[in-house]
Amino acid sequence: MTELLSIILAAGEGTRMQSAIPKVLHPVGGLPIISHVARAAREAGSSRIAMVTGPRHAAIRDTISALDGDIVHFEQSVARGTGHAASMARDLFETADGYVVVVYGDHPLLRGHNFRAVLDRLDAGLDAAILGFEPVDPTGYGRFITDGEQLLAIREHKDASEDERKIGLCNACLLAFRADVFRDLIDKIDTNNAQGEYYLTDLVNLANQAGKKVGYGIAAEDDVMGVNDRRQLARAEKLFQQVRRDDAMRAGVTLRDPDSVWFSWDTEIGRDVTIHPNVVFGPGVKISDNAEIRAFCDIEDAVIGQGATIGPFARIRGGADIGPDVHLGNFVEVKKSTIGAGTKAGHLSYLGDAEIGTKTNIGAGTITCNYDGVNKDKTIIGDNVFIGSNASLVAPVTIGDGAYTASGSVITEDVPADALALGRARQENKPGYAPRLKERALAKKAAKGK
Amino acid sequence: MTELLSIILAAGEGTRMQSAIPKVLHPVGGLPIISHVARAAREAGSSRIAMVTGPRHAAIRDTISALDGDIVHFEQSVARGTGHAASMARDLFETADGYVVVVYGDHPLLRGHNFRAVLDRLDAGLDAAILGFEPVDPTGYGRFITDGEQLLAIREHKDASEDERKIGLCNACLLAFRADVFRDLIDKIDTNNAQGEYYLTDLVNLANQAGKKVGYGIAAEDDVMGVNDRRQLARAEKLFQQVRRDDAMRAGVTLRDPDSVWFSWDTEIGRDVTIHPNVVFGPGVKISDNAEIRAFCDIEDAVIGQGATIGPFARIRGGADIGPDVHLGNFVEVKKSTIGAGTKAGHLSYLGDAEIGTKTNIGAGTITCNYDGVNKDKTIIGDNVFIGSNASLVAPVTIGDGAYTASGSVITEDVPADALALGRARQENKPGYAPRLKERALAKKAAKGK
Amino acid sequence: MTELLSIILAAGEGTRMQSAIPKVLHPVGGLPIISHVARAAREAGSSRIAMVTGPRHAAIRDTISALDGDIVHFEQSVARGTGHAASMARDLFETADGYVVVVYGDHPLLRGHNFRAVLDRLDAGLDAAILGFEPVDPTGYGRFITDGEQLLAIREHKDASEDERKIGLCNACLLAFRADVFRDLIDKIDTNNAQGEYYLTDLVNLANQAGKKVGYGIAAEDDVMGVNDRRQLARAEKLFQQVRRDDAMRAGVTLRDPDSVWFSWDTEIGRDVTIHPNVVFGPGVKISDNAEIRAFCDIEDAVIGQGATIGPFARIRGGADIGPDVHLGNFVEVKKSTIGAGTKAGHLSYLGDAEIGTKTNIGAGTITCNYDGVNKDKTIIGDNVFIGSNASLVAPVTIGDGAYTASGSVITEDVPADALALGRARQENKPGYAPRLKERALAKKAAKGK
Repeated sequence: MTELLSIILAAGEGTRMQSAIPKVLHPVGGLPIISHVARAAREAGSSRIAMVTGPRHAAIRDTISALDGDIVHFEQSVARGTGHAASMARDLFETADGYVVVVYGDHPLLRGHNFRAVLDRLDAGLDAAILGFEPVDPTGYGRFITDGEQLLAIREHKDASEDERKIGLCNACLLAFRADVFRDLIDKIDTNNAQGEYYLTDLVNLANQAGKKVGYGIAAEDDVMGVNDRRQLARAEKLFQQVRRDDAMRAGVTLRDPDSVWFSWDTEIGRDVTIHPNVVFGPGVKISDNAEIRAFCDIEDAVIGQGATIGPFARIRGGADIGPDVHLGNFVEVKKSTIGAGTKAGHLSYLGDAEIGTKTNIGAGTITCNYDGVNKDKTIIGDNVFIGSNASLVAPVTIGDGAYTASGSVITEDVPADALALGRARQENKPGYAPRLKERALAKKAAKGK
Repeated sequence: MTELLSIILAAGEGTRMQSAIPKVLHPVGGLPIISHVARAAREAGSSRIAMVTGPRHAAIRDTISALDGDIVHFEQSVARGTGHAASMARDLFETADGYVVVVYGDHPLLRGHNFRAVLDRLDAGLDAAILGFEPVDPTGYGRFITDGEQLLAIREHKDASEDERKIGLCNACLLAFRADVFRDLIDKIDTNNAQGEYYLTDLVNLANQAGKKVGYGIAAEDDVMGVNDRRQLARAEKLFQQVRRDDAMRAGVTLRDPDSVWFSWDTEIGRDVTIHPNVVFGPGVKISDNAEIRAFCDIEDAVIGQGATIGPFARIRGGADIGPDVHLGNFVEVKKSTIGAGTKAGHLSYLGDAEIGTKTNIGAGTITCNYDGVNKDKTIIGDNVFIGSNASLVAPVTIGDGAYTASGSVITEDVPADALALGRARQENKPGYAPRLKERALAKKAAKGK
Repeated sequence: MTELLSIILAAGEGTRMQSAIPKVLHPVGGLPIISHVARAAREAGSSRIAMVTGPRHAAIRDTISALDGDIVHFEQSVARGTGHAASMARDLFETADGYVVVVYGDHPLLRGHNFRAVLDRLDAGLDAAILGFEPVDPTGYGRFITDGEQLLAIREHKDASEDERKIGLCNACLLAFRADVFRDLIDKIDTNNAQGEYYLTDLVNLANQAGKKVGYGIAAEDDVMGVNDRRQLARAEKLFQQVRRDDAMRAGVTLRDPDSVWFSWDTEIGRDVTIHPNVVFGPGVKISDNAEIRAFCDIEDAVIGQGATIGPFARIRGGADIGPDVHLGNFVEVKKSTIGAGTKAGHLSYLGDAEIGTKTNIGAGTITCNYDGVNKDKTIIGDNVFIGSNASLVAPVTIGDGAYTASGSVITEDVPADALALGRARQENKPGYAPRLKERALAKKAAKGK
């Protein structure tokens, strides 16, 4: 494959987002918008990626470096147009060998195949190829002025004639060039226009003037949507989810209500998994075959084993590793814990920093007391253990295989295998006291004066 | 502004609702339908509001008086048509000076600007102006018979000729008159029609006969939808929510799934707040900038501070005041409590009638025992306190700054600042007892005979 | 009514489902697809029902026998077409007297009236009648070739001419015959076609050749949708739900957000019940008038009494019987328990295998410890009892009328009526210890080396 340099433009202010956070860092499917673009560029074969951001955009550089590594950042210190922004990456394109793509950073639904649609044209011998699309309503978009397969110019909507405005094929803001052609033309862009800015789209004109072969590829409208405000962000999220939901169903996952299941960009789900309405997946989730995720679950950073049944109303997170055939029931939170095959925790429990064996029963209301205000300590529970209901397991503590803890116990010391542990007060009944208590409470109420 | 009297008609039975509750009291966005109309009337500048209800509608009068104050109620004891209903408010319109508007009480999406669309016509010199709209399907609606800008008559669908039925402009049931004109004409309405009822729309005819200038304003179809059954109620709720969601996003709120966030009529949300899927707001919620509301939260009557992170699965209510940077996690309920900056209550807790300081840690499973069957007592917790997991805090009780309560404790007495409080039994292990317990349980099962 | 035999074909492999579970066993509204068809057949008056399944489909036979009783199963051991499949039911149709219907088992939205649409034509004197529908996009469906009211043939899409493909009326795969006609023709189907299979639709040709009167009925497109993959399964579920939601609203139920309420096939809901967003009903739920189901509830196999208020965040199941005016609040699970009128359990409780009287108060965090690892035992609580917060009630245990248990108690023995029961340790305060604990924790952290 020919060497590819992708330059991602993200210097805009994004004021319509009404946000203190840079526009391209708002997430879609749990991943920043611009990270989707960087990954699409990589998927299309980019060996080098440049990112051009504005002067107040250190957050973009930091976030993307952490997420996507190996990206070369350039700053456009003054906003002088997209052509000027692309030229900031000069250090990279001066030595570029094969192709150069320039793409906007606010198009979260771009994928590798959208890049390929224009790169394939270069492979076929063109000097430049621009991605186009046919929007339902082209108002506002730059129109493609063509002569057969040659793209002559991109006419901005406001500069277009009545006739040109009837053109349906519009600019999707992904431009591919042979590197030498790009290098020759990028400095020839001028500011002879109403805004006095350097327009990247002028490269099409310039390439034609230089006798180059300029063509175009086509993308679906949804693939190339840009995000400029929160409503478009919500729409991008919706479109992203629809793709993921369809993919899951095609792969043999039942989504009883697809519209209420929210995937992360990296969610992996096995075959014959059933997901009930209202399930939200954060990043880092992998679910094995035949598991069932009941309604109202929130799961992130967790592995769910084969045949496990989760929820309703379960929260799993923090690197949880849930074994096969485990049942986690309602109002149960599991954080950073390993749970062995066939173990059950059905009701109102918090299991944090725990290692739990197989076929163990965790009673309703069990709480691992894993935090002393400074340290998070471990609760280790063996196989075939019975933790009685409403237990407090004060970490660090180990409960051996086959042990049994009495309901309502506070367990502060290790319990040997097969031992019974009790840690609760003896009950005392005071006959006839209840009415007295009530009288006293009523008196107190009366004393309060109302 | 000219004095304005609004007469809201709500005497209908609303039988298609299949409800024991009067139709106009069913809520949209948490507010009764008719209250939306009363507020729109007020927003449009009504100095006096009359409401005409039926003989079995005391509930309407009581509810609306409590919600919207200062409304004069009239009863229409016999159903004799809308013209007759409007005439019930005679005490008010006899002394009216400027304009009189008559409007239906079952149009929850009416807003002040819909009133203004006709009042502006009166300001411009007309004697009367009726609100019209152009429904996608006009079947069933009264048609506007016009001659240029003059509205000649409103023809009921069933009385309309083939040609008249082709008219797209229909009656939206909001009629505005100069007060003197209204007064002159209201008693001239007769019952010469198939139903033998007094039709309010006859005022248009009568005004024309009296040589008055009658015009119309225009409303969007959604703004003037009437609610007659539960499906229309659900549709009104949906339209109401869409407006609120769009408003929030425009103001800089991220709604990951706008369709699953449910606002109340009075919800206030700051900038750069992120709201995840499936969040329901009841009345009285105010959320400050940068807060994050995770999935599956139910919040009403609560103030949420800047940068707080709430949920997933949190319930907040009853006048809760949640400070900045507080974290309330899963399966946590906060009722009528104040929580100081930076305090955390992450898991399975009930905090009721509590005053909690800053930077305090509330362990998993903590329960404030605030009710003795008669009184609700207070739990007061200082700054930098550590409440160990699975604590029972028996109110009234005070826990001083920097104090520490051991996991699994029942705290019945005050804890001084910096003290450690324990209230739990000592643990006892019985080696080898667990298998015996199991044998006994199995024997019991066998004895049960199955 | 004429005797009716229905033959349901379910021998297909359903490979596009990507599932180890036979296609027709995937549920819609909580009931297997094929069970919907069987019930529609019964609703239409079928006195006998035959089901033809494939050789690896024992699961279908077992499931359906359990659910729908009295169905005669036949196996088609080799896939030789739908005509061959229908002929497997020979034992039944050889003795059939009135009518025979053959229908596909993967049409979950079929109802009795769809059967009646063709059976009525037989009643009117026809020899055969096939159900047709007019899809928005007929591509791929068999077309009805007609001559006036006579149906001459069903032309498969791939065999149809350009002109025939313009026909909008298509085969809905529900075929009705006079039993004698069916018997005469079924063995005349041959395999003279591209696939070399026996096509059921050839019966139309054959009937025409035999001079029979063949007509058709019409169904709505949604009614006759087939399920071949998980996306169609999700669509069927959605259509099923829409019908149920509309039915509920028509009957006087308020669904604030109809799209987020999920019914089971058998859910029964009374008048003036309000259901908030995000409520999921499993099988076996009956809700009485005026109950309120708040947001985020998951309810199955439960009866909810008049005026009860449930949720938000409640889970009810396992044969729960919730009395009138009961309140069950957030993070409360009730399993296989009876709860008397006016009793409240507002917060973070698990009530399993309990019998609770009237006007009792269950404190926050109450857990019935109903399981000893082998047996599930009962907790019996009387009327007007006050269970203090964070109680552990260790079953089997009985708490008498008017008794009072102290907060944080573990109750292991019966409590007499009107008695006060305590089962908790006495609190001890250690002044000034908290800072020492913190120092120790910090030292431990340091010792861990990070």
